[in-house]
Amino acid sequence: MTFAGRSVLVTGGLGFIGSAVARALAAAGADVAVLDALTPGDGGDRRNVEDVKDRIAITIGDVRDDAVVRELVRGRSHVFHLAGQVSHVDAMEDPRADLGKNTEASIALLEACRRTTPRPRVVFASTRQVYGRARRLPLDEEHPCEPVDANGIHKWAAERHHLLYDQVLDVPSVCLRLTNTYGPGQLVRHARQGFIGWFVRKVVERSTIEVMGDGAQLRDLNHVDDVVDAMLRAAASDARGVVWNLGAEPMSIRAIAELLVEIRGAGTIRFVPFPEERLRIDVGSAHASWERIRRAIGWEPRVPLRDGLASTIRHYDAHLARYLP
Amino acid sequence: MTFAGRSVLVTGGLGFIGSAVARALAAAGADVAVLDALTPGDGGDRRNVEDVKDRIAITIGDVRDDAVVRELVRGRSHVFHLAGQVSHVDAMEDPRADLGKNTEASIALLEACRRTTPRPRVVFASTRQVYGRARRLPLDEEHPCEPVDANGIHKWAAERHHLLYDQVLDVPSVCLRLTNTYGPGQLVRHARQGFIGWFVRKVVERSTIEVMGDGAQLRDLNHVDDVVDAMLRAAASDARGVVWNLGAEPMSIRAIAELLVEIRGAGTIRFVPFPEERLRIDVGSAHASWERIRRAIGWEPRVPLRDGLASTIRHYDAHLARYLP
Repeated sequence: MTFAGRSVLVTGGLGFIGSAVARALAAAGADVAVLDALTPGDGGDRRNVEDVKDRIAITIGDVRDDAVVRELVRGRSHVFHLAGQVSHVDAMEDPRADLGKNTEASIALLEACRRTTPRPRVVFASTRQVYGRARRLPLDEEHPCEPVDANGIHKWAAERHHLLYDQVLDVPSVCLRLTNTYGPGQLVRHARQGFIGWFVRKVVERSTIEVMGDGAQLRDLNHVDDVVDAMLRAAASDARGVVWNLGAEPMSIRAIAELLVEIRGAGTIRFVPFPEERLRIDVGSAHASWERIRRAIGWEPRVPLRDGLASTIRHYDAHLARYLP
Repeated sequence: MTFAGRSVLVTGGLGFIGSAVARALAAAGADVAVLDALTPGDGGDRRNVEDVKDRIAITIGDVRDDAVVRELVRGRSHVFHLAGQVSHVDAMEDPRADLGKNTEASIALLEACRRTTPRPRVVFASTRQVYGRARRLPLDEEHPCEPVDANGIHKWAAERHHLLYDQVLDVPSVCLRLTNTYGPGQLVRHARQGFIGWFVRKVVERSTIEVMGDGAQLRDLNHVDDVVDAMLRAAASDARGVVWNLGAEPMSIRAIAELLVEIRGAGTIRFVPFPEERLRIDVGSAHASWERIRRAIGWEPRVPLRDGLASTIRHYDAHLARYLP
């Protein structure tokens, strides 16, 4: 199938990944609506869609606002649900706010979807964080979910609601568990949404990357183009009621930092002790198997890490000021 | 240890199980505070503590009210957290309300606990419903959690928060997954909080028990005295950061209905088709292994089912009017 002529909604569509999804859908000829609360600090920014702002319809609002979301889901063939709070640190500081933005917002969206006909297909951006600490690697979808931070708990609950509404209330849904996503447009203002954006900023600034601990923990990084590809493929498929990991070849955080410095030809690395509040919610090594989604719809990560990081660095070298307060 | 002279809080303490916990603690010489929102339909009722009302301090309020709960947890050695919404049917009708009463309320309570010193030990009343449909029986604590209704999702998230606050924020917590609890004081006004109270009412009224489907699904029933025993033992133990099933020998729903009719010497049984909305969230056969809690703290169910049901029937035969609107 193609998205040409389709009417679609992207929640969180002014954020890093959401805006990339919206842009790809607009380029594919879809009629794109975007809902974003522009919550300060959460990542939404109108400048993320500056280049396509005349081709998408933007609503500033909260997914939990029933009147707004009911109107926005009507007549849509697909909903890409990316609105949410993504910082594990912020979630621990204010878990009730995180519950509202992740779990309650998902319920509100799904309630709106079940009350419209025909029901849109929903693709939900979940997170590898739902697994918690890995009992085995790579993480597959049968691995127990034992999240060790509030954000992981709330995303897991949101996932289960998508599956519940799929099974019980006939809202076709697919949940993708995203791993660390990087690329042009990612948030670099602060370090609370993951390490990779912060590392990129540091090398762009020819500054010092601070690696917590010894940096031996493994991570897998997906370029945003690959994540967008996964979301569009999942939306276009017939699959429903499923949970699929994204993932990539693992690399240590230390090696990622070294690769960034090498590509940039500048920057230094410093190892610092884990702050206590980070250590308690750190999951150690974590990377995921993408075998299930590959078999189901043929997705695999395509952007080589070196190329992806190099173009990301070039982007921020040219446009860093745009992303700073 | 003993609870004599201890200062304890019971949330949901005017409900069926909560009031039994409060009564047992008062009998053990504890200084008992009770918090209950008396939400219409949820089960809280002042008459549940009529016999001990002069020995417990009752606050009518919501666990989510920070000012109230912070004041109430101060100086407590133990918090028994039983407040919540327990109807799966109601949870599906209004999942956002259920999220608030179960997950958000637990976060609010735990936040209050972490902000007081010394921190109380928390015993949380979770539910077997977190497992969803059984992949194997009996359900043990390693069985995957795949809840098939909103209430199960929200109780699971509440459990995880108890474990999180235990591990990360040093609020010692134990989660008990309760199965079907029965006994004097259980809600018999409507059928939305499980089948057993409704069945008891029907035989007390010498009326007809309607069994959905063929009644072959297995269930395990714990008498409320056994549940109270488990909660007090868990509170008195040194265990923390753990999840334990309660459970009992399984019996089919049909056999339970037949046993009730036999004990009462009256009543009839009729088999009716599952209503569609119930069938979709029904978990089939479900009963749990209590081996883990038995090994840890020596708990096991002690009230024989026949004796427990007989005394429950006698109770409602004498006092049914008190429990009806």
